[in-house]
This record gives sequence, C-alpha cells and structure tokens, in this order.
Amino acid sequence: MRAARLRRLAGSLAIGHVRYSTTGSSQLKNAQPFLVGTRHGAVAIAHNGNLLNAVALRAELEAQGAVFSSTSDTEVILHLIARSNAGSLIDAAVEALHQVRGAYSLVLMNEHQLLGIRDPRGFRPLSVGRLKDGYLLASESCAFDLLEATFVRDVEPGEFVCIDREGLRSAFPLPAEPPAPCIFEHVYFARPDSHVFGQQVSRVRKELGRLLAEEAPVEADVVVPVPDSGIYAALGYAQGAGIPYDYGIVRNHYVGRTFIEPQKSIRHFGVKIKLNPVREVLEGRRVVLVDDSIVRGTTSRKIVSMLRAAGAREIHMRISSPPTTWPCYYGIDTPTRRELIASSHTVEEIRRYIQADSLAYLSHQGLLRAVGKGEGYCAACFTGVYPVPFPVEDVSQLRLL
Amino acid sequence: MRAARLRRLAGSLAIGHVRYSTTGSSQLKNAQPFLVGTRHGAVAIAHNGNLLNAVALRAELEAQGAVFSSTSDTEVILHLIARSNAGSLIDAAVEALHQVRGAYSLVLMNEHQLLGIRDPRGFRPLSVGRLKDGYLLASESCAFDLLEATFVRDVEPGEFVCIDREGLRSAFPLPAEPPAPCIFEHVYFARPDSHVFGQQVSRVRKELGRLLAEEAPVEADVVVPVPDSGIYAALGYAQGAGIPYDYGIVRNHYVGRTFIEPQKSIRHFGVKIKLNPVREVLEGRRVVLVDDSIVRGTTSRKIVSMLRAAGAREIHMRISSPPTTWPCYYGIDTPTRRELIASSHTVEEIRRYIQADSLAYLSHQGLLRAVGKGEGYCAACFTGVYPVPFPVEDVSQLRLL
Amino acid sequence: MRAARLRRLAGSLAIGHVRYSTTGSSQLKNAQPFLVGTRHGAVAIAHNGNLLNAVALRAELEAQGAVFSSTSDTEVILHLIARSNAGSLIDAAVEALHQVRGAYSLVLMNEHQLLGIRDPRGFRPLSVGRLKDGYLLASESCAFDLLEATFVRDVEPGEFVCIDREGLRSAFPLPAEPPAPCIFEHVYFARPDSHVFGQQVSRVRKELGRLLAEEAPVEADVVVPVPDSGIYAALGYAQGAGIPYDYGIVRNHYVGRTFIEPQKSIRHFGVKIKLNPVREVLEGRRVVLVDDSIVRGTTSRKIVSMLRAAGAREIHMRISSPPTTWPCYYGIDTPTRRELIASSHTVEEIRRYIQADSLAYLSHQGLLRAVGKGEGYCAACFTGVYPVPFPVEDVSQLRLL
Amino acid sequence: MRAARLRRLAGSLAIGHVRYSTTGSSQLKNAQPFLVGTRHGAVAIAHNGNLLNAVALRAELEAQGAVFSSTSDTEVILHLIARSNAGSLIDAAVEALHQVRGAYSLVLMNEHQLLGIRDPRGFRPLSVGRLKDGYLLASESCAFDLLEATFVRDVEPGEFVCIDREGLRSAFPLPAEPPAPCIFEHVYFARPDSHVFGQQVSRVRKELGRLLAEEAPVEADVVVPVPDSGIYAALGYAQGAGIPYDYGIVRNHYVGRTFIEPQKSIRHFGVKIKLNPVREVLEGRRVVLVDDSIVRGTTSRKIVSMLRAAGAREIHMRISSPPTTWPCYYGIDTPTRRELIASSHTVEEIRRYIQADSLAYLSHQGLLRAVGKGEGYCAACFTGVYPVPFPVEDVSQLRLL
Repeated sequence: MRAARLRRLAGSLAIGHVRYSTTGSSQLKNAQPFLVGTRHGAVAIAHNGNLLNAVALRAELEAQGAVFSSTSDTEVILHLIARSNAGSLIDAAVEALHQVRGAYSLVLMNEHQLLGIRDPRGFRPLSVGRLKDGYLLASESCAFDLLEATFVRDVEPGEFVCIDREGLRSAFPLPAEPPAPCIFEHVYFARPDSHVFGQQVSRVRKELGRLLAEEAPVEADVVVPVPDSGIYAALGYAQGAGIPYDYGIVRNHYVGRTFIEPQKSIRHFGVKIKLNPVREVLEGRRVVLVDDSIVRGTTSRKIVSMLRAAGAREIHMRISSPPTTWPCYYGIDTPTRRELIASSHTVEEIRRYIQADSLAYLSHQGLLRAVGKGEGYCAACFTGVYPVPFPVEDVSQLRLL
Repeated sequence: MRAARLRRLAGSLAIGHVRYSTTGSSQLKNAQPFLVGTRHGAVAIAHNGNLLNAVALRAELEAQGAVFSSTSDTEVILHLIARSNAGSLIDAAVEALHQVRGAYSLVLMNEHQLLGIRDPRGFRPLSVGRLKDGYLLASESCAFDLLEATFVRDVEPGEFVCIDREGLRSAFPLPAEPPAPCIFEHVYFARPDSHVFGQQVSRVRKELGRLLAEEAPVEADVVVPVPDSGIYAALGYAQGAGIPYDYGIVRNHYVGRTFIEPQKSIRHFGVKIKLNPVREVLEGRRVVLVDDSIVRGTTSRKIVSMLRAAGAREIHMRISSPPTTWPCYYGIDTPTRRELIASSHTVEEIRRYIQADSLAYLSHQGLLRAVGKGEGYCAACFTGVYPVPFPVEDVSQLRLL
Repeated sequence: MRAARLRRLAGSLAIGHVRYSTTGSSQLKNAQPFLVGTRHGAVAIAHNGNLLNAVALRAELEAQGAVFSSTSDTEVILHLIARSNAGSLIDAAVEALHQVRGAYSLVLMNEHQLLGIRDPRGFRPLSVGRLKDGYLLASESCAFDLLEATFVRDVEPGEFVCIDREGLRSAFPLPAEPPAPCIFEHVYFARPDSHVFGQQVSRVRKELGRLLAEEAPVEADVVVPVPDSGIYAALGYAQGAGIPYDYGIVRNHYVGRTFIEPQKSIRHFGVKIKLNPVREVLEGRRVVLVDDSIVRGTTSRKIVSMLRAAGAREIHMRISSPPTTWPCYYGIDTPTRRELIASSHTVEEIRRYIQADSLAYLSHQGLLRAVGKGEGYCAACFTGVYPVPFPVEDVSQLRLL
Repeated sequence: MRAARLRRLAGSLAIGHVRYSTTGSSQLKNAQPFLVGTRHGAVAIAHNGNLLNAVALRAELEAQGAVFSSTSDTEVILHLIARSNAGSLIDAAVEALHQVRGAYSLVLMNEHQLLGIRDPRGFRPLSVGRLKDGYLLASESCAFDLLEATFVRDVEPGEFVCIDREGLRSAFPLPAEPPAPCIFEHVYFARPDSHVFGQQVSRVRKELGRLLAEEAPVEADVVVPVPDSGIYAALGYAQGAGIPYDYGIVRNHYVGRTFIEPQKSIRHFGVKIKLNPVREVLEGRRVVLVDDSIVRGTTSRKIVSMLRAAGAREIHMRISSPPTTWPCYYGIDTPTRRELIASSHTVEEIRRYIQADSLAYLSHQGLLRAVGKGEGYCAACFTGVYPVPFPVEDVSQLRLL
C-alpha cells in the first residue's frame, strides 16, 4: 500500500497480513485479514498456522446454519467466536479456541481491542513490540526493527494478550500443554534477524553449522553456502572447521525464495535463473556446500552439477538439520511424504542422486543442542512424532465447490 | 470477462450480475453474485430489489452467531437459507423467504439447480428465456435477444421456478398478496427493448407520450426528446400531437445514464459533457421538450437553459409521468424526499425553477391507462401509497464498522 | 486523462488527439500528437487525413539521413519542417507542405504558437473556436460545445491560421486548388451536432432522407432507422414520406460504432451484441429500413434477417447516399475495392444478397442537393473521380521492418 | 516479458536493454532499445555509457534538419548513422562514431547483422557469449550464465564485432587510444559473478578487502559487511586480518540497491527499511564495518548509528576504494561534486560526520594492485584525471522543451 493511502487511514488499531496459503487455495477470497460482522461487532482476524480439525468443525457449523465465504480454515475460528454468547471478544475467543486443535498464532481485532493469541503448544511464533505509546504484534520480531519499534517479548504458548487503551493484559485461559514450538523456524523459516522462541535466529543457524562441522568434518579448501538459505550455517561450519568461507554461488536478487513459490514450473525455472557459480572460487577446489535442508533433492542435484561444471574438484554437501522425512501439519507448506526424498531414500541414496562426493546431515542431538532447549520443540518433520494428532483425511480439503 | 476466459469455464449452470447498490455501499465485497458454503452445499445468489427488514434480521442472525462478510441485504437471505434444515435448496429458500419482507427478484444456484424467485408483490421483473435445450433467467428480456435466446414468459409474482436436468418446474409456496409490479420500470428503468410485466417497454413509453399530448397539448413547431430517457415518450407525443419530431439535443455516447451515476460531482459534470444542442433544430422554434421524470430539477434546468442559448423561442416541458414525490424503498435508488423537487414544490414552482414557458406532467390516470392494468402496480413514488410497510429507521444502514 | 492530472499541467498551449490509424499500424509509437525536437525547437503535431506521397517522401528523406521513429505518414511532415531553414515554424510549415500531396488538417505547435492548417483541397474539416480569451482548434465543432466554447468559423481550404499571444492571424501561402471537402463527412463520419464545411450535419442528414423519400418512395407502415448511423436520414425520410417514424431497433450503448472497429472478429460480434429488434414496432408491418451506406453488405444482411425474425412483413431498405464503389485515399478507413459490395454488384444483386424486398440508394444529384454546394465536394468514394492522384502502390505500406 | 510472448517472437536477432538513465530524463520515450527507420533499413540500438559531445552534435544535427524523438544522447548516434552514405551498417557506424566522444558500449542491429562496439577507451564492459550455434552480446558476463550460455571473451576497447549468418568478424576501425576501462565497475558497479575487463569481479573485491586489511589494520572482534555492496571486500578483509567474518546486518530483499534508486526520498526511506542489525553479532563487540565507498556519507552515518544502538562497542569503518572525490562523466550516475562528501572533507572530517571510531580508505596503489593492471584504468572518480575531456556545460541538458 502506498504511503499516501496509509496516511489517510484513521483509527488506532490495524491488522496487516501475508500468509502463504497452506489450507484452502490461494485465491483473493482467502486473502487475510478477514473482516466480518458478528454479534460482537466487526471482527478482523489474521492467522499464522494450520488447524487440524477445521474440516470437521466446518461441517458441524454448516449443519448449524453457518455461511462460509472462503475456503480458509481461519474462517472456522470466526464462526466459533460469532456463535459464542460470551460478553466480550476475548471471552468469545477463549470459548472458540477450546474447540480448535492445531497450530495458531492469531491476531484478532474489534473496534476496541487487539488480541494476540498463541495456541497452547506454541507451534508458531508471535511477539509483542512497542512503538512510542503503542503496542505491536508480529509473527517475527524483525518487523519491529523496520518500524524502529522495540521487541518486548514473545507471546507465550497458550497466552492471550489483550491490547487496548488501558494497555496490555495477559491471560492463560486454555488448558496448559507441553510447549512444542516449531524447530524448523530456526532451521529455515524465520528471518535471520528475528528473535524466535527466545533465540536469535542467525546465531542458532551459525551454531547448527558449527556443530555440523564437529559431527561431519571433511578435508576441503572452501566452505560455500547455498544462498540464501545456507549462509549462516555455512559461516558456522567454516568457523568451526577452520576452512575459508567464500561465495562460490551468487544469487540473482530479482527472484524470491524457492521453497514457497507456488507453482512447480516456476520453481524449477526459478533455480536456473537464480544461482550463478563463481568459477574463481570453485575451480580446482574441494568444496563444502552447505544448505539448511533437502526437500525433493532436485535443487541440490542441480546445484551440485552447476558447481562441477564450474570446476569444483570435490563437492561435500552438508545439511544443517536432520533428514526431512515427515510432512508438517502445523503450518509449514512442506510437500507430501511421497515427495520428500528422505522419507524413502537413505543418506547414501540421496548422495548418489544429488551426485555429491559426500553428504552428511546434522544429527537430531546436534539440532537440539543448537536451539538450546532439549525437549521443548516440535520436530515432527524430522522425527514423525506429532505433538497434536492430525486427522486421517487430508486437512487441505476445505472447498466451496 | 473476455471470451477466452468464458470458454474455459466448465459446468452447465452460472450466474452473472450487475447491481447498482441500493443498500450497503458500493464495495468489492458487496459485488454479486455471492458464492458461499452452507449445509446445502455451495450456494450462489444474485438479487434485484431491496429488503425492508434486513437490518432487524441481520441483528437477529448475528445474535444467533452468524458471520457476515458483506454489508449487503442480500447476504441475509443466504444466512436464512443456511439456517434452514429443509432437505432441499428450494425448501430452504421457501423457509427463508417467509421471514423476509420487501422487493426481491432472486436467482439462486447450487451445484444442481437454478432457482428464479419473485417476491409475492412482484416488485421487480424476472423472466425466463430459452436457448437450445437450456433455460435462462434474466431481469430483463432484452438480455435474451443479445444471446439469441427466446423470451418464454415472466416469472410470476410469488413464483419459484426451479431449473435442473429435469427441466423447469414452478410453485407458489408463499402466501399470495396483491401484485404490485414497479410502474417506474415502464417509465424509466427498464431497457426499451425489454418485455416487462407483460408489456413491451418502448410501446408503453410511446403511449405515455401520446396520452400526454392529449392531456397537455401545446402549440409548437417541434417535439424534442431529452436523450435517451425521453425519446419514446417524445415520439409518442409528436405522433399524438401531429407536431414534427426532431433531434434538438445530441447525446455523447461516451457517458452513461445520469440517474444511476454514484457521485454527485460526476453526475453534475456528466450533464455538461453529455448533451449538445442542435441550433438548426431549435433556433426560433417553439419547442416541446419531453422527458420521463424530474428528480431534483437541476438537470432539467440546465437543459432548458442550454436550449434557450441555442435559440429556442419557447420551451414547453412535458413529463411522461406524474410528479415524483416519494422515495422508493423497493430497489430504485431515488434520492430522499428532501431532494425530490416535487415533494415540496408545486408544478408552477418547478416550472419557474427550471425556467420553462410551460410545464405539464402526465396524470396518474394517464399513467395507468398506458401501462394497461389499472390497479395492479406499485406507484408509491408518485402516490406515497406503499404496498409493503417499511421501517422508520433508514434501511440503508447495514454496516460492518 | 483524469481531472487532477490535467489541472497540474502548466502552459497556455496544448494538443490532444484521437486518430484512427489509416496509414501505418495501430501501435503506441504511432499515437499522436507527436512531440519532437528540431532546429525550430520542440514541435508537436496532430494530423487528420492521409498523405499520398508519404512513401516516396520518406524514402527521399531517409536517403538524406533522416531517422524515423514511427510508421506514420504524419512524421514525414515533421521531417520536412525540421529540414527547412525558414526562420519561423509557420514558414517552415509552408515550405514543408509545398512538397506534400494529400489530405491534411493539421494542428502544429511549438512553445509559442499554435498553427491550424487545412490542405488546399480542404478534404477534412478543421474549425476555430473561442473560449474566454483563448482560441481553440478542433476537427469538429461539437468539441467546442462540450467545453462551452463557441464556434467561430471553419479554417478554409489552404488556410494557415496562427494563434499566439497576439491573437489569430491567417494566410493562404500554398497555390490555390479547387476545394474538395469530403462529402462522406456529411453522410456518415462527422458527429451529428457538428458544423462541417458550413453545414449543420444532422440537418444535412435529414435532408438526405427527405430527398431519398422523394426519389424512392414506397408504401409502408413505419420508417425504422439503423441506429445510430441512420437515425437522421430515417427521420427525414419519414417526414418526407408522411410515414410514421419509430424505433424498431434498439442499440446497446455499451458497444461503439461498427465502422471504425479495428478487428473483423470484433466487428462481427459487435453487430450481434449491439442491435435488438422491437417486435411490437415490427410485427406484421411493412418497414422502411434506413441507413447511411452499405459497405460490405454483411451488416445490412444481418439486420434484415433480424427484422424478419421479429415479424416484419416487408423490408424496404433505403440508403441515404449513392453506392459506395471506390476506396478513400484521403483519410476515411474504407476497405479495399474488393470488399466493397457495390464495386462488383448491381443494386438488384445487393438487394438479393441482403434479402430485402426492395433496395434504393440516393442519387448523386440528390446527395449534392442535400449538401448544398453542387460542385465543391470530393465524392470519390461514390464516383471514382479522385481530386488528387494517388500512387499505384499501396499507400499504407509505411513500415519500419 | 512473459514466456508466452517471448515464444511468439520470430527472427534470429534481438536486443533487450535496461539502462539507468544518466543523460536525459527517465521517461518512456527514453526507454531503450530504440528502433527507427533509416536509409540503412530498420536499425535498433542499445547503449551503455555516456556521450560527452552529445549536446553539440545534437544542435548541429538539428541545424541540418534532424528530428529528435527522445532526450537521450543515444539518439545522436542513430542520426549520425542515418546520415552516413556508407554502404553498410557497420561502415555507417564507423563513420558515425568518428564524430562521437565519450563512453559507449553499443549493441546495434539491423535486419541482418548484430554489431557490438566498444569505444576506443573501453570505458564500459561488453562481452561476447555463445549459446549453441549463436553468439550473444552482454554488458556483463553473468547474463550468459543465466541463459546457460558460455562466456567467450570481452569485446576489446575500440573493437567492432559483427555477428551475422557467416559468424563473428572483428575490426578496429577507429584511431587507437590508451584504454581506460572504468575501475569503479570492479569496486561497485558490476555484478559479482561477472568477468569484467579480464578479471572476475568477486575475486577482485575480496582482494581489495585483503589489501585494505594490510593497509589499515585494526584490533577488532568481528568483520561486518554492509550488505550487499561490502560483502566481498569484508570477506577479504576478514581473511586478511584473521578476524572472524559475520553478518551483523541483514538486508531486506524486497528493496533494491541504494545507489541507483532515482528519488532522494525513496533512497532515504530505502535505507531504513533495508538493513536490520543483528544484536547478537554486534553487542559488546569491536566491529570492522566494510563498504565499497562513501558517496554522501548519509547512509554510512545511519548504519554506524544503527550498529551503536544495537550495542557495538567500537565501529571501525573500512572502505575498499579511495575517497570518491570527482563525478563520473562516463556513465556512472554519481552525484555532483558538491554532494560528494569526500570532495570537500578530509578523512578525519568524514569520520567525525559518520561518527565511526576510525575510518580508513584503500590507497590508490592498493586499488591498482587489486585490479591487476597498473596503468590501464579510468579512475577519474578518485583522481580527477579524466581520460576524455568533457564540456564545461552540463552534459545532462538534452531536452525537448
């Protein structure tokens, strides 16, 4: 939105949102925030995460006469709130969220209050910032820096914060559950300049690389990151291993992140246009190539082949997390099991597929050491141990037609 | 929508809609048709008319937990349908419309059926057409001509027609009420090439002019229509009076109809850019200037002054309907009483305001003679006799915020 | 351009232009006005007409080192001006136009002066208007009415008018030639509310209809115009013949004029979507159908068939100009001879093709009587007598590649 | 351009171009490539660089009757070519470029040939690539990688390469002059993955950092690059100094490069939105902050202040080139002398302005050692020694109005 239009907006509360659709399709009608009319007045919502019982709840709500305007799981929460006869938006939200299972970091708003809510497991991050007299809520703390606001603290798992003219209040109205913040935020998803779950992201990533250097050393001439996903882990690896760090691959800044691009054909083309080898860094060298994860294996295979064509003598791929073997049901848009190469191939098979001279992943122990809180994470994508059970049917089947 | 996109659409049922918003504001979220998910599956709706108890119904529905995504009265109908536990869309619609008062010609659709519904008074038109094996529903029959479909018949007041693979069925499930089709459709609103309420519109308009010539003759040299609203009545006047018909005003086709343009400033400018006098037709002549109605009087005043500047010797304004004194609550976007010049001024005062040499309106009797069914019309805008009571509060106050 | 942007423009001289490309293709680079830098400073030009020796001149200019940025014949004039070492823009224009043959009504501008120029034959119109202290130039006088400016007079054939801070001066610097204003402006091209070549257009068109009624009477019940091209001639015919005038065809205002739409497929579809028959006017009637001309015959054939389907008992087509047998090289975008049905078919053959009960054209004498100046017109499209010879090669072959 | 449109294009020769306008304003009419019609047929041109005698040549050409369609210096070349009566495009180009002084890497094309031309000084780069059977020309070799083409060689200063169906030929038709390729391409302008003037850019930049560490060592805890302009020099500095390299500033990828953004207000805002400090890397540390150059000083001042606010204990700024004291007239869009902080301030004054604890620039000797060819560069922006004299008047004054 242009500056001029922003300036014209009145009022003291607002929500903005960018969500890569994980449930329901990417259509205008699913664009958040949603703004609706209810018995509690106008209510707006923005949601980061993924509900696990949305299909069942929606069927139930429709049976009771609800009208759905989108295919998003988020709308289910609005209906549950609208149905509550609690006297306040926050009480209605408590009542609504008692019925919901899954991952949700929510920002809810009516004309008077701004609520920040994290599910009891705390899968996704949500943090509180401060700008002059006002409070802000953001998925990632780096948003505060852009606004020259200050990071105050994380919203805790299960916490409801309520911001209004009186200031900020806090409550934990839902039954407590063992926290399970998403470990993949640290590995890949969060912005490196954010604080997530009490840790600074780029620091964690360098630590992942340092531990990877300990676990999987190799004799080499240069450590090269896959830009931009591997740069912090690669720097940590280089520092840990005492091998020079260098930019053997240059990224074209006109293209976005590979992982979240919606269409296969674009993603494929994306890689080609995006990365350029630097022959002077690679030629005749034994290269440690560092990335955060391997999803399908096709991108890594292309990069390895590109480095070889640019003269690399040996290519040792190092991945700063364990093999990604299970899909995420809590809001990261990973592909299905079938598409995850590590769910059906051994490390040696993957190495052969991507044609690296060696391949090593960080151990699960290493991962937990780096993030610093041994027990408290959801690492289902690596372990298959899902903190909240998910339904057998595909959760992404919310449809209007 | 471009031809290529239309061709790609699958399926055998569809709704399109253009509605000038009369209740709720003109925003994207109020654009029809609406498509929502309900217990009856996906339901789409398009609505011509205006509900009178929408504010109360919406308040009630919200109190019961409904979530509203728009500010349109039409959404109320969708919620009533969604709440019905009737076994079919048509039965749910019957149940829903029992609770609704006001003017509605509806097209409703689910995956299997297309419903056409007219309220028991039949305020707004709705007609059935046929194209090859298929049926069509349209507000005005002229839409069929464009598609080379044929006009079959009007949907009757209170009738529900149901179109599906079996063909077309009809029912009258709501309590019958005396029909009250909108007489102003004939005077101004409908397209001249349509059939509305069993009459051909342009024929009715010429008849209005012919009767006006009988009721309010004048010695003159030429009959000049205000384009395009007055051309049929002017032609009828000319034929009835035996005075030559001629184009003394030319309309710039780049500009739309004055009456329905949303913003005052545009409408004002609209008139200036829209009409050009033809001096050769006007100079030294005694002109009968014919239009369908006078709303605020400002447009007529400008036209009279324009004709005088172009040399007209006398200007006798003739209006092919009675003075418009009351606002419409049934779907025509007339201004409030305060803005209707005839609600507070006599004919002579209006004449003086618009600066015509004489001014005459068609009588109510004349109007009824021309439309051909003496009793069966809603003429509330002329008489103040409203067939369906409307609430005291402003019906246009549906708001989200 | 939006009002806000217009208001921000500085300065006291300006040119705007809409030209249907007749030579060179319809590309952005051919959009007028052109603004270029020359030894005479910045020069802008807008051109209505068509040059006949543009291909030869351009070849010559290129041989002398000229750089052409467009495929338009208009750019040739700019180069001739730029090459002139005359001391003023007007003298340079005189020098340039000595070398040019063909049809041109030009508006030329530098930082100080606005020139209006009509070629010695005066093929295309150009008129002078006045708004407060300022002068205006426009192809058609109706533009002045929209701006509430007043029509002052036509620029004469061969006249150069120069408008600057001193006011308006006039000169006739080119060798005089017999004037040949385009008769087809009166028949079809000009807007009905304009004055063109000293005549009011809608008046001329009614006169064409009146003379047509004299020349080609027929017993009938109703005179129906093809909207909008035939309405004035039809009104004249009805008045002359004493047969009632009525609207048997209604035009959909969302679609533009048929003649000038650029693509065949659109034009074809255009007719279907554009015209609707009014059964009540046509059914059982003997209809005089009036239009201004028949080009390919396909449109007339479709209209006749549409009227028959709507119940017309007889259809007598009357055309308010002689058969169009020759293409125009002076700026009207008529099709080639091969596509003009009248160039290869007799009137009776055309009647059979369009399936009318009778068909008559206005005579050449009739046409000249209506426009009022027996000798002084170019009627090449009807007679094949071209006032300015045109080259054998296709004049529309200006190309960059 | 979308893939589908690209696929539809016919032919075997093409030019695309992105040029930040340095002479003439940034308007659509100045967008390159230009395509014009001339005696040599259609000619297209794309130009990297800046002509020094364009104003004088244009005045001369206008006096001879030339018509200019843009305000770009590039158009002057087209006119000189069009005026040449040489028998081929290449001979015409030779004749034209004899008259031109300044910096130009050109791609010229007619229907049969593609020419690549570098001015005798070779200010700007131009290289030849190969894709299957075809040749490519590009300003920077990294473009070839994106297309999976191979880099063949640089076009040499003063060289004309001609590509057609026969293959590639080469000539040196202009008087030889001492080469003066732009040293600033290596410092900042070129993409890091390109080969420019025989050197790999990222390698040169690391060498600049390494030499800077030798020349201006400092005791510190971490070397932090200003992203992205300083990352290679910072890496070289870190390697040279044996101090850990780390990312203390994270760049928001949604925003482009600071240097070339056209409007001041945007640039200012750009810095704020673009860079985020990473407190964990900075807090309590002695930081070496590395960038490629200081232009106005405002950006550096903001970054230093941002690092201090994030806890940096000491900030030692190191610049991998000498102070930028003179504007460039050969195609880099540097500000005027008055805006270049180093043209009027000593290093110590600049240090005080940006509020760093220490500040050092690379020496001119160091710069020359890193680029590897002691004599052969234009370093006018650092030395004020301009290889080609420029006119006293502002060269950026090409205007239409």
